[in-house]
Amino acid sequence: MQQPSNSNEQALAAALERTRAPLDAARTLPSAVFTDPRWLALEGAELFARRWIAVGREEDLPDAGSFLTQTIGSERVLVVRDHDRALHAFYNVCRHRGARLVEEECGRLRGAIACPYHAWTYALDGSFRRAPSSHPQHGDARSLALAKLSHGMREGFVFVNLDPQAQALDDLFGALPDFARYRLPELRRACRLDYEIGANWKIVCENYSECYHCPGVHPQLNRIADLASGGFEESASFNGGPMRLRPGFETMSMSGRAIGARLCPDSGADASLAHYYLVYPNLMLGIHPDYLVTHVVWPIAVDRSRIKCEIFFAPEAFDAPAFDPGEVREFWDLTNRQDWALCERVQRGAASRGYLPGPYHPSERCVHAFDRWYAGWLLPFVAG
Amino acid sequence: MQQPSNSNEQALAAALERTRAPLDAARTLPSAVFTDPRWLALEGAELFARRWIAVGREEDLPDAGSFLTQTIGSERVLVVRDHDRALHAFYNVCRHRGARLVEEECGRLRGAIACPYHAWTYALDGSFRRAPSSHPQHGDARSLALAKLSHGMREGFVFVNLDPQAQALDDLFGALPDFARYRLPELRRACRLDYEIGANWKIVCENYSECYHCPGVHPQLNRIADLASGGFEESASFNGGPMRLRPGFETMSMSGRAIGARLCPDSGADASLAHYYLVYPNLMLGIHPDYLVTHVVWPIAVDRSRIKCEIFFAPEAFDAPAFDPGEVREFWDLTNRQDWALCERVQRGAASRGYLPGPYHPSERCVHAFDRWYAGWLLPFVAG
Amino acid sequence: MQQPSNSNEQALAAALERTRAPLDAARTLPSAVFTDPRWLALEGAELFARRWIAVGREEDLPDAGSFLTQTIGSERVLVVRDHDRALHAFYNVCRHRGARLVEEECGRLRGAIACPYHAWTYALDGSFRRAPSSHPQHGDARSLALAKLSHGMREGFVFVNLDPQAQALDDLFGALPDFARYRLPELRRACRLDYEIGANWKIVCENYSECYHCPGVHPQLNRIADLASGGFEESASFNGGPMRLRPGFETMSMSGRAIGARLCPDSGADASLAHYYLVYPNLMLGIHPDYLVTHVVWPIAVDRSRIKCEIFFAPEAFDAPAFDPGEVREFWDLTNRQDWALCERVQRGAASRGYLPGPYHPSERCVHAFDRWYAGWLLPFVAG
Repeated sequence: MQQPSNSNEQALAAALERTRAPLDAARTLPSAVFTDPRWLALEGAELFARRWIAVGREEDLPDAGSFLTQTIGSERVLVVRDHDRALHAFYNVCRHRGARLVEEECGRLRGAIACPYHAWTYALDGSFRRAPSSHPQHGDARSLALAKLSHGMREGFVFVNLDPQAQALDDLFGALPDFARYRLPELRRACRLDYEIGANWKIVCENYSECYHCPGVHPQLNRIADLASGGFEESASFNGGPMRLRPGFETMSMSGRAIGARLCPDSGADASLAHYYLVYPNLMLGIHPDYLVTHVVWPIAVDRSRIKCEIFFAPEAFDAPAFDPGEVREFWDLTNRQDWALCERVQRGAASRGYLPGPYHPSERCVHAFDRWYAGWLLPFVAG
Repeated sequence: MQQPSNSNEQALAAALERTRAPLDAARTLPSAVFTDPRWLALEGAELFARRWIAVGREEDLPDAGSFLTQTIGSERVLVVRDHDRALHAFYNVCRHRGARLVEEECGRLRGAIACPYHAWTYALDGSFRRAPSSHPQHGDARSLALAKLSHGMREGFVFVNLDPQAQALDDLFGALPDFARYRLPELRRACRLDYEIGANWKIVCENYSECYHCPGVHPQLNRIADLASGGFEESASFNGGPMRLRPGFETMSMSGRAIGARLCPDSGADASLAHYYLVYPNLMLGIHPDYLVTHVVWPIAVDRSRIKCEIFFAPEAFDAPAFDPGEVREFWDLTNRQDWALCERVQRGAASRGYLPGPYHPSERCVHAFDRWYAGWLLPFVAG
Repeated sequence: MQQPSNSNEQALAAALERTRAPLDAARTLPSAVFTDPRWLALEGAELFARRWIAVGREEDLPDAGSFLTQTIGSERVLVVRDHDRALHAFYNVCRHRGARLVEEECGRLRGAIACPYHAWTYALDGSFRRAPSSHPQHGDARSLALAKLSHGMREGFVFVNLDPQAQALDDLFGALPDFARYRLPELRRACRLDYEIGANWKIVCENYSECYHCPGVHPQLNRIADLASGGFEESASFNGGPMRLRPGFETMSMSGRAIGARLCPDSGADASLAHYYLVYPNLMLGIHPDYLVTHVVWPIAVDRSRIKCEIFFAPEAFDAPAFDPGEVREFWDLTNRQDWALCERVQRGAASRGYLPGPYHPSERCVHAFDRWYAGWLLPFVAG
């Protein structure tokens, strides 16, 4: 049988260049990036393993010994707070026989990281502490410390980067708009929604990036949001912008009424704005007058993704006796499910010979920004 | 590790040549065509995507706006009847962001084909009609029409061909025996049986093509059919022939009595014949005195197939107050399940190092015809 | 995209060489052998298909016509006892159309091996007997005999070797310690435990080969066994050794009391010893004062294995009115499940970029022996 030649890759490169054209001449991403497992593997090795990835929230690590784990591709990274309140991120793998050290999503360790297989233990900073029945050979404790990963904090999120040569987190996020007035680092999680869907992770990102589909798909959202009002800014690491709420609505919820305390007490124009940002590759922020909703999408397979949606309120909101995030949770669960059904349809369409990259509508400039960013990342790997 | 060389392909080519020998010197197909995913991928791209494939029946498309969809490999083709009663076949993919347009198996569209994602709409003939908030860029409507597929009708079946250079349907089926007396285009579906089994699609075709296995496997069928009587004819696109019913039996059913009106009112010799044809690659016709049974087999994986079995009667049969197709449905469900269990055993055997292509029994000449046709199709793709 | 070069294989070869170093300088096996499907395929073709594999026990084949089947990779081999009480092993595949002949794990054939598809029959020694409606072409019965496999018996186990050039079974097992006093060929199975787990088969072998993990993982076992007492011997085909029971314990069971008759009536030192051996590649023997426990591990996927654990007692044990193997079965089911959970953790860790081959603890010399044997087998296939 003939071997696949480079001609497919040449066509792919040409299609990616077309995605990078100005919006009115550009075409959407080619089918292969949604369907070919080779590109998924490359995304794992060269994108997710080289970018700053949000693995959790600082509130998940309140005390010495607190830990969280997060799956990134075939990794399950481990983040631990030590006795000096410093955070450390590790590959979650014992240096002896390679057992995964911690399976739980979060919790609190009792003073040390102990492997459940042979009881090798490590201090909370990852240094090797002891092996039962130890032996001179194991004396070189430094070579047995857990492998450390770069990490950092921003807006209350804990970020990890698997790349030892990672660019500084601040350099990357320096260009993000200033949301200090929204007190994002202080917000506390009220609820979480988990999904697994039959679509490539990039289709979820694209779906998040436009409201051109909202009138037909999201009647509840459409009632509240002024869809024509979406703003747009972008940098090398994000895109997004504000959207206005229609007069008479206070937030995105089933009733349109605010649930919790305002995030910006002195909010002015923010009182009628929602800000939607996609931080590349997979963190989506939805900042509303009274809450933050995040979506994080994780690739499982070329046609399968896991999505974690979390909703955060101001700390004082939880003190109100009648505080009930149900109306916001219900709103997003409904909106999410409407979106996932369409993402799955796009996945099925993208696998068709009949799929041709299509034109962007002017209201899809954020989709185009994401696609351009992705095409620009992928192109150097494609034999042109 | 050593790369797989061409020596495997040379052995494969030699085995395929041996399959093409005259029956008494020929050997069955080699293991690789039942077990190697590379050949399944090639069948998808170069066989199923280049042949006329039966996707449904004309009765499924009675009115303007009626549609049917059918999965062919990774495609789900869409066939629609327009307001002028003309049929159109399309890739079922929106030209904007690539969402699958229609998911249902069949139904009726209200005047246009509307994508559920962004509400782009197409006329029933596939031409682009409008996009919400449209824009000069989208003015070139011709470039946004749905991608059309070749299609045609024969014996009441709707055929689609994904190959833009498809040979004419009539050229291909011109050689089929004349069944006009059986009124096949008029027949109406009474019931449908669906199966998913653990065997390569070609094993199902081979199983359909001989009754050498019937004595031990199908006691119910064996009671009615005179197995030694099977006829044989073949062309480039089919093979099959008639089989006699034993005296005293009217049709293939649990009781052996006819259920519906005769398909040929003036039937003569046909009154005691069943005609079994395999139309390459995957359509099997069983024409009985009072009904037509079809089997269509769809590859899912190298070792997994989906089979749709449908039973059709004369239109007037449905008018009889006591009409009940249950005896025929039960007969075929029983016979099918007896066959699938054996097909799955052949699949497991074919995956063994101990599998060697075996000799054809003289009563397996239809199996040999199918295998010869398949080997002849595959050989040019194999590095000899 | 860049093709994978040989640099990965060079790194693999270097890692395997390091595994073969003396224990105090050696490092455990590299990640690829636990995670890369290419090596699993090679293990199937060049290891499991070229070694003597235990497929059952002689007690499973008591009579003429008795058979057993066992899956080895994609094979399901068939072993049959003929009318002269000789055993024969075959590929379990009909020579006509390739159907698997026998699906059951064991049972008794009525005088011949009959294919359920077209009723071709073979004598119990595999010779072709007849085909219905036979024909001169089928006269060359010799060419239609079932394909035979090498087989042999040792310690009551039936071994099969798929390699036509197999080394003699006795040459291979000649070096095994002499266990004649334990009457292994006479023992009879009392119970069987089946498991399917998410770990590579070699991780199961490694886990079996050390008790360094026992204190923290197996409190029940730890109560009975003197872990520091493990002996060690090895040859080209096995490794293992004795372990002492703590004073006051008679065997490994929930209570520590013996269940059945002693295997060596005149046992002396054996009365307080358990002998644990791993016979390469996948047979594990645990010889206790009153019973034999075997574990056989079968690869299903690079990260998935099936394990069969069986427990055998002296024939006279079954005659005792109060004989109840429950305490031994419960002990091993508990111990097995404790082990499988850890094997699955190692599998997940081995898939991490953070996995680095680690040092062997001195009490892991049997693990090192197995890993050295495996590395020595694999190295010639790796492009160095």
